[in-house]
Amino acid sequence: MKTYQDMNHEELVSLHTQLLEQYNCMKALNLNLNMARGKPDFEQTELSLPILDVINSHYDFGDKIAYCNYGILDGIDEAKDFFAKMLDTNPQNMIIYGNSSLTIMFDQISRGYTHGYLGNTPWCKLPKVKFLCPVPGYDRHFAITEHFGIEMINIPLYEDGPDMDMIEEYVNHDESVKGIWCVPQYSNPTGTTYSDEVVKRFAQLKPAASDFRIFWDNAYIVHHLYDEHPQVLNILSECEKAGHPDLVFEFCSTSKVTLPGAGVAALATSLANKEDILKHMSVQCIGYDKINQLRHVEYFQKIESLDEHMKKQAALLRPKFETVLDIFEKELSGLNIGKWTKPRGGYFITFEAMDNCAKDIIQKCKEAGTLLTNAGATYPYGKDPRDATIRIAPSYPTLNELKKATKLFVLCVKLVSIEKLLVNKKMI
Amino acid sequence: MKTYQDMNHEELVSLHTQLLEQYNCMKALNLNLNMARGKPDFEQTELSLPILDVINSHYDFGDKIAYCNYGILDGIDEAKDFFAKMLDTNPQNMIIYGNSSLTIMFDQISRGYTHGYLGNTPWCKLPKVKFLCPVPGYDRHFAITEHFGIEMINIPLYEDGPDMDMIEEYVNHDESVKGIWCVPQYSNPTGTTYSDEVVKRFAQLKPAASDFRIFWDNAYIVHHLYDEHPQVLNILSECEKAGHPDLVFEFCSTSKVTLPGAGVAALATSLANKEDILKHMSVQCIGYDKINQLRHVEYFQKIESLDEHMKKQAALLRPKFETVLDIFEKELSGLNIGKWTKPRGGYFITFEAMDNCAKDIIQKCKEAGTLLTNAGATYPYGKDPRDATIRIAPSYPTLNELKKATKLFVLCVKLVSIEKLLVNKKMI
Repeated sequence: MKTYQDMNHEELVSLHTQLLEQYNCMKALNLNLNMARGKPDFEQTELSLPILDVINSHYDFGDKIAYCNYGILDGIDEAKDFFAKMLDTNPQNMIIYGNSSLTIMFDQISRGYTHGYLGNTPWCKLPKVKFLCPVPGYDRHFAITEHFGIEMINIPLYEDGPDMDMIEEYVNHDESVKGIWCVPQYSNPTGTTYSDEVVKRFAQLKPAASDFRIFWDNAYIVHHLYDEHPQVLNILSECEKAGHPDLVFEFCSTSKVTLPGAGVAALATSLANKEDILKHMSVQCIGYDKINQLRHVEYFQKIESLDEHMKKQAALLRPKFETVLDIFEKELSGLNIGKWTKPRGGYFITFEAMDNCAKDIIQKCKEAGTLLTNAGATYPYGKDPRDATIRIAPSYPTLNELKKATKLFVLCVKLVSIEKLLVNKKMI
Repeated sequence: MKTYQDMNHEELVSLHTQLLEQYNCMKALNLNLNMARGKPDFEQTELSLPILDVINSHYDFGDKIAYCNYGILDGIDEAKDFFAKMLDTNPQNMIIYGNSSLTIMFDQISRGYTHGYLGNTPWCKLPKVKFLCPVPGYDRHFAITEHFGIEMINIPLYEDGPDMDMIEEYVNHDESVKGIWCVPQYSNPTGTTYSDEVVKRFAQLKPAASDFRIFWDNAYIVHHLYDEHPQVLNILSECEKAGHPDLVFEFCSTSKVTLPGAGVAALATSLANKEDILKHMSVQCIGYDKINQLRHVEYFQKIESLDEHMKKQAALLRPKFETVLDIFEKELSGLNIGKWTKPRGGYFITFEAMDNCAKDIIQKCKEAGTLLTNAGATYPYGKDPRDATIRIAPSYPTLNELKKATKLFVLCVKLVSIEKLLVNKKMI
């Protein structure tokens, strides 16, 4: 098979004409598809509806009737046990919250900004605060740091995790660097899982700033697509071993386990950090929804039931990932106009187009009725320096919709790539 | 009946000996009672348990299946309708949140501090920010403003609301005054309901600061103890009529309607304020727990059912208030050693002791096994200038416990008052 680069002008023009015909046919179908949203579909949601049955007026509350009332700021013991098992840590290191881990992260940044961690200067009183952002990454992380006027620095993300040399250089020498955003397991959007070596280097950082923290968003810790899967090393115990117990805030939730809008979120950290957080939380809240915490614990009973549940989720998600990847493989391999990741879990596939093509591909898909995540969204300030990264979210459309959308997508990749090559050839 | 002031030294000493004997008898009972917590008791909680039954896996979701997923940042339409009816305002002015109105208030203050309202300078960039605090008031309000280093100014609370002359003087002339905490209906802890005249004067404030806001915590808007009850005037429509639609943030929740730990909280404000808030919220959250919002709407169906439900709550609470007030009346009236409020709703009674007696009374109760809210808690910085105000929370103990606790309380009031009078007489 010839790569597009090896084709001459005539071959490219002829192929373009042919592809454009196919594109116009698809456009005429008036599709209304969406591969932008990283959210569970209807079937996945349905899988978790029985969770709504476990706590009702006939439930034998006993002493747990106290969970209906105010109080218990750091969450019910049963939920601390459950999430500690999920994160392989100790219940006393856990705080259990409401339905959104994003809100916990926002609150943690907000506290750094208004009050500072463990007696450090609040960031709002400093001339400059910086965060490191492995890219491509999660747009909502970047939105939080941007909201607080924190300067974001791109860190390349490789197959085994972010560029640790660069991170060490920044963190260990620049006191204005106060944090880094990480999605260590099945990173959003590449699906990368950090290697043990990378996690260990994180734990061994010697930050110039005593209030530097790793924001370890373990959103996809149990979201495996295959029985055989990588598992990210436990950052909390590595940090403890390295003598830096306060270095990390770890976040997780059941948003993509049970019902995305009605899940439970949690944070794990050192006892010193936890005490500091609770001091602030006691002003902010009397206690989170403990009935929903209980609902989750009762639904899963044992951590093994969680594994079973996630296997059912995977059985619905896996065909979607494979559909996209099969079409990519069949339609694009050998053409040298794009690369893509092959995640073993999580919610996204990253497609890397030729430079300066991402925006145009996304626009072309949109014109034919298929939405993709905005170009640049996976970079701080919405600026992808190479305009090459496209986030594909296969979870929400039906399998049939997804096939159509992916076929349209590869058509747009081909068209835009040819157009760029033709312009480049003209310029030569 | 003689007042204590009219008694001579011998009479006081002899009465003291007699009361002390009674006190020591009560102390020997090793009581473990609590009149400190403004939270519903077990029976009140039980009343709302059927709310846990209305949304289950057999519920006919239809299009509402979307409520299980991410999104719908400002809450589901049905909940906006419900809370708008409760607050007598328009659904489009509502934002529906998670389980805690305290958290909404904290977030609003935090936003003022970090970002400012409607383009105004963030408070963290200003040399001085002040809040007005009608006293006695709610300790958790004061804790939030103190947390953000905001200077708090005491405003006397009268029978018809706070001192409006003083408020107008501050608000209309001091640009550093950015807000005021109000509990307009059955104020915590006095039970005061603001008169129409007071509400109108609030609406007609002409603040020196364009980011001055009234924090209108309507926590007890439907919490009437009697069918015949006062109802605070609608502040939002009064502000609109007065041409100051952006002047107020109004808060409420179902925490003391259904389950205190698993309720739904809401905010009502102008469309401009709402848009400003949602801009920030979109960074903080993908959406609150909409299933719990739906659970509440389905449970109450019509606003009339809410009234019925609150009447059942009142039937449990009313005897408790009356028990306390009856004992006060019987044991203390005519003695001139204390005054108390007689609320028509809400959760608290305020007892005003003789000056410099509150701390000692509370300590004496504690030594005999009965907890009361800390002295000073109802004032900013925990400082009651007269050391006279005691907050009584009759809701949590059983009726029997409450009787004992109140009898102990009046005994302590008598003892401490005599001790003060004796010291004063010696000093003369």
